[in-house]
Amino acid sequence: MNRAELIAEIRKKKSYLCVGLDTDPDKIPRHLLKADDPVFEFNRAIIDATADYAVAYKPNVAFYEALGPSGWESLRKTVEYIPKNCFTIADAKRGDIGNTSSLYAKAFFSEMNFDAITVAPYMGADSVKPFLEFKDKWVILLAHTSNPGSADFQLMKSADGRTLYEEVITKSQQWATPGNLMYVVGATRADKVASIRKLAPEHFFLVPGIGAQGGDLEEVSKHGLNKDCGLLVNSARSIIYASDKEDFAKMAVKEAAVIQTQMKLLLESYA
Amino acid sequence: MNRAELIAEIRKKKSYLCVGLDTDPDKIPRHLLKADDPVFEFNRAIIDATADYAVAYKPNVAFYEALGPSGWESLRKTVEYIPKNCFTIADAKRGDIGNTSSLYAKAFFSEMNFDAITVAPYMGADSVKPFLEFKDKWVILLAHTSNPGSADFQLMKSADGRTLYEEVITKSQQWATPGNLMYVVGATRADKVASIRKLAPEHFFLVPGIGAQGGDLEEVSKHGLNKDCGLLVNSARSIIYASDKEDFAKMAVKEAAVIQTQMKLLLESYA
Repeated sequence: MNRAELIAEIRKKKSYLCVGLDTDPDKIPRHLLKADDPVFEFNRAIIDATADYAVAYKPNVAFYEALGPSGWESLRKTVEYIPKNCFTIADAKRGDIGNTSSLYAKAFFSEMNFDAITVAPYMGADSVKPFLEFKDKWVILLAHTSNPGSADFQLMKSADGRTLYEEVITKSQQWATPGNLMYVVGATRADKVASIRKLAPEHFFLVPGIGAQGGDLEEVSKHGLNKDCGLLVNSARSIIYASDKEDFAKMAVKEAAVIQTQMKLLLESYA
Repeated sequence: MNRAELIAEIRKKKSYLCVGLDTDPDKIPRHLLKADDPVFEFNRAIIDATADYAVAYKPNVAFYEALGPSGWESLRKTVEYIPKNCFTIADAKRGDIGNTSSLYAKAFFSEMNFDAITVAPYMGADSVKPFLEFKDKWVILLAHTSNPGSADFQLMKSADGRTLYEEVITKSQQWATPGNLMYVVGATRADKVASIRKLAPEHFFLVPGIGAQGGDLEEVSKHGLNKDCGLLVNSARSIIYASDKEDFAKMAVKEAAVIQTQMKLLLESYA
């Protein structure tokens, strides 16, 4: 999916909601465990329920990888099942030397047909560029993450007063365009969103941390929205685990609809 | 495998060679493609041939992931096949928020029985610590990698003159011990090995870049060896692709034996 198509979907649905498919067999409703592939059955029901309100889906690859080869089958079926008008993100946080990153790109962009993958910047340009060589595919680079450990290295200051995450955002713009590069920007510190928006006025930010991690949608939107929206805000647990009973899909759609309604108003106010 | 066992194996074999199992179906000898699982058959032959000369094996997970679910089966069979007196490293470069890193740790330490995994430090303490909670399992943290892009962020200097990779090495020592933490230190700049050895006198370093990436074994060993050896030097392509014909295993053992002979002399001189 290219940038124009993504923006068109956001305008049509009046939503910049990304649903995090962090599907854990220990947390899904018990009645699904009888299915051949409970993880996929759960995802299918969540996707069916929320596709009118969400513009993107983001399976966290670790949840599938932890299940062994069957988890990869569930992941592949899930990405195939997601409607083609939704943006798909492999939250994989990969990154390695060039020829190895090429293999990861092949795994997520060719073997599976994801639109985007999250990438860790530590190894620099040649670890990121192989992901950028696929047409209409995206890198979502870790910039300032939402976890407590983000302070350990991302906030390290250089001699000229710039933090590592600012350096990542500035330097990576030499490698790509707002048409194939986004940034992970944690929502837990909304003040940061404003300063990061200045560094990358046009790029989309993938914002985790709304809901379980405690970010505030209004604050993030106020500081992060731009004329093309420029945000994908992820919510996982609060939607997919809204209920652990047979009504889980119904409760998920209720939660997604509440967020979409807020987003509609925020788009009208700030975008 | 714990530290004492690893050191004992190094002393017994007079080797600190790690064989990189970067197995690519396009590069393995053609006659193997008739097998049910060519990747595993290739690995099995390489392991059989080199196990007297190598103390560790390091499959690069990207090569398996790029093959889809069958690649994960090949990887699982490979790690099960590696003799128990050899140290096994999943070169996966994972790292995510705490609950997600726990899942990656489960995938590589419980679902598959690897001794160690390579981890990217960008997301900080809570992304690394879940891997450290497994008894006799190891984190091998990216510090100064051997690729050209390592200069982009790893060499960023803080106000007090320390580079990011030095910060990673210093801070991470608060989270772990030389008994469960190693560092990835690229061999392409041997002078760096000496200064990193000062920052982490006791920790093992996993050194890629000997062979195809152009690092020099003697230089690295001179600066990196400590009283317990303290090095695992990886060689992948020069061993596993020593020949692309039916004699590939025979040529691999020849190459591995040459390296082991050098290592024996280097251990006598510098360790």
